[in-house]
Amino acid sequence: MNSLVIGICGGTGSGKTTLAQRIVESVGEDAALIGMDSYYKNNTNLTFEERCRINYDHPDAFDTDLLLKDLRTLKSGGSIECPTYDYARHLRSEKTIRVESRHLIIIEGILLFANPDIVKELDVKIFVDTDADVRILRRIMRDVNERGRSLESVITQYLETVKPMHDSFIEPSKRVADIIVPEGGFNHVAFDVICSMLKKKVQERKEKKDNETV
Amino acid sequence: MNSLVIGICGGTGSGKTTLAQRIVESVGEDAALIGMDSYYKNNTNLTFEERCRINYDHPDAFDTDLLLKDLRTLKSGGSIECPTYDYARHLRSEKTIRVESRHLIIIEGILLFANPDIVKELDVKIFVDTDADVRILRRIMRDVNERGRSLESVITQYLETVKPMHDSFIEPSKRVADIIVPEGGFNHVAFDVICSMLKKKVQERKEKKDNETV
Repeated sequence: MNSLVIGICGGTGSGKTTLAQRIVESVGEDAALIGMDSYYKNNTNLTFEERCRINYDHPDAFDTDLLLKDLRTLKSGGSIECPTYDYARHLRSEKTIRVESRHLIIIEGILLFANPDIVKELDVKIFVDTDADVRILRRIMRDVNERGRSLESVITQYLETVKPMHDSFIEPSKRVADIIVPEGGFNHVAFDVICSMLKKKVQERKEKKDNETV
Repeated sequence: MNSLVIGICGGTGSGKTTLAQRIVESVGEDAALIGMDSYYKNNTNLTFEERCRINYDHPDAFDTDLLLKDLRTLKSGGSIECPTYDYARHLRSEKTIRVESRHLIIIEGILLFANPDIVKELDVKIFVDTDADVRILRRIMRDVNERGRSLESVITQYLETVKPMHDSFIEPSKRVADIIVPEGGFNHVAFDVICSMLKKKVQERKEKKDNETV
């Protein structure tokens, strides 16, 4: 197995997760999805108060070494135990999720393109580009309605860390993209274009594997 | 025939023509290509001096009615006599080029997305996005080396009309795009993604037509 790795990057509320999930639904069992969010560092050496003060929108918040190791394992046909993250405690959970390798590996995250070592592993780099006003409105809807947070706390966090980190790391990382998709998962034409290509590539990989088996 | 119409837009030197030509080469005889440049207005009522003063980077310089008529004819399976333009005289030439309808109609031009009536006719809207400094350098190379123009005249024209019109009409028209392609025809991953989809669509159309014939 030599999987095709698709990276989907974009700011908070850009629609990148929706796009990634729609692609996985469309491609079916030949695709595996991992979220960069699962790879936050496990800061067991810090107190809860110290962990609360970490800037989770900065590239340093991620355990890039483990992410790269897992990505390379999946790429070469192996399976991984994907970590899960406990946002309430700001620590990695005990639970892991077994992810088997597939012809198509999709990885999505806000800071995916900010690390050159990760970028090197990606065969297709898709940046989801959505206006900042639309993105913050989507984030407010999600965090206030679905996660029960106060409007004030969402706004404070956005202005203090989310926005400055977006402008410093995410927006500039758009430059490495092969394709830029306005509006992400809500853009049906782009979804159609991307899925057509991915299904074709998966088909080619399956046929190649069948021939090798014969 | 109900052709699929692909619009490719982008500023001067963006790589949009290269992308359009590479797509046509890859898809082969199932694709027809028309350039918006062929549809400059035929200002026979103006003197040569008056025609020299026209701003050819403004949407009003184009014969949009004829372009729309021809596009709709091609879309519905008819053939057209595509005009050709004599840049030396700033007039339409006598010669026309017969273009037969194909499953895939590709149209490219700097101001393609600036007209809502044209936009409505496009099934897939691709914007080629290349940095302004790279674009002007490509234009200088082309106009000075290939077209024998002086560097000074290229720079004057760029600053006086090309750039202001780009900023007023082309850059804002990026918003209607379904997909944004950095670097145009030189972006191999994006080319691969787009061609896979187009070939699949052409194949579907051919199979549908075969079934209808049977």
